[in-house]
Amino acid sequence: MTNRITIRTQGQGLYEITAEVAVVVHSARCSHGLCTVMVQHTSASLLIQENADPAVRRDLECWLNRLVPEDDPLYTHTAEGPDDMPSHIKTALTATTLSIPIIDGRLGLGTWQGIYLWEHRRRGSARKCLVYVMP
Amino acid sequence: MTNRITIRTQGQGLYEITAEVAVVVHSARCSHGLCTVMVQHTSASLLIQENADPAVRRDLECWLNRLVPEDDPLYTHTAEGPDDMPSHIKTALTATTLSIPIIDGRLGLGTWQGIYLWEHRRRGSARKCLVYVMP
Amino acid sequence: MTNRITIRTQGQGLYEITAEVAVVVHSARCSHGLCTVMVQHTSASLLIQENADPAVRRDLECWLNRLVPEDDPLYTHTAEGPDDMPSHIKTALTATTLSIPIIDGRLGLGTWQGIYLWEHRRRGSARKCLVYVMP
Repeated sequence: MTNRITIRTQGQGLYEITAEVAVVVHSARCSHGLCTVMVQHTSASLLIQENADPAVRRDLECWLNRLVPEDDPLYTHTAEGPDDMPSHIKTALTATTLSIPIIDGRLGLGTWQGIYLWEHRRRGSARKCLVYVMP
Repeated sequence: MTNRITIRTQGQGLYEITAEVAVVVHSARCSHGLCTVMVQHTSASLLIQENADPAVRRDLECWLNRLVPEDDPLYTHTAEGPDDMPSHIKTALTATTLSIPIIDGRLGLGTWQGIYLWEHRRRGSARKCLVYVMP
Repeated sequence: MTNRITIRTQGQGLYEITAEVAVVVHSARCSHGLCTVMVQHTSASLLIQENADPAVRRDLECWLNRLVPEDDPLYTHTAEGPDDMPSHIKTALTATTLSIPIIDGRLGLGTWQGIYLWEHRRRGSARKCLVYVMP
């Protein structure tokens, strides 16, 4: 019932994972239930956001980068690079787990909603998520 | 098991929806389980907050409006009005899904907790939420 | 199926509760399912964060204290002390509920993830959480 999906990221940004999550829901043959997504990292997070105008995601990323800049003299955790501590803060301000009702075999997202993995590190990596479908 | 509720908003602010969610839990005749609420929009969000002093909600709103002002030259997504991009950012910083245990047929909220829909657009609208009760 | 756990806090900070939640999962003898944690307060919150370098948590706390300072002239809700309104804002920016898949009888956390209760009040207290395990 729990599937692991891996998202390969290439640097900071929002990566849509709606299709990957929908595949798990579809293969579970669940008509009504609950889909929970969890990212197993603390420097990447999850977000449900607008899937229409890509400028929304760019502005979101620019705004959060300005709020949580690198090279802030406040940081003492610097051994893992200047982008690591900002990544932990950005993760704390967004979501690590999401729960989405399943209706008629489909994710109950609104028309303009997509599920995104938000990579906060400059250098991307293979990000693991758990997708759990409960019938 | 999944109910749709519609909240009509009149401009920015926190609208308590605890009673609307409780009605769904009650009608599901579920004594122990889990209630998941999801808002199907990306410019309105969900929040569990204090239901006692209304000044808490007013201060929350003023504080977030100052953190995420309109007319920020950073925004490139401006076609839907000056309050649209701030609304997406505010939604990203708060919650889109909430999961609340059900105990003895009631939402397991603390004494001072209420469930709120946070409308971020200046002009309100009919906001749709899903309420899923899992026994 | 729903357990109440109480965390005694001594002032602001991140208190790891992974072990307390794991005990509930273990005693439920659930091999695959979903664990939902909810804090029943509005001036303390939940966070999944790095459990390795304690500097990450210290920096997180310093950063959030700088973003949401006490004695901000914006606050009108001041009757409960100068740290109360900042605590509500910090709670709004982080999480009140978390849902974690259970795999092979264990919480499906990543290697470096821990579950934390974030106490935002200067004076700690006994914080109540619900832990619900759904098989």
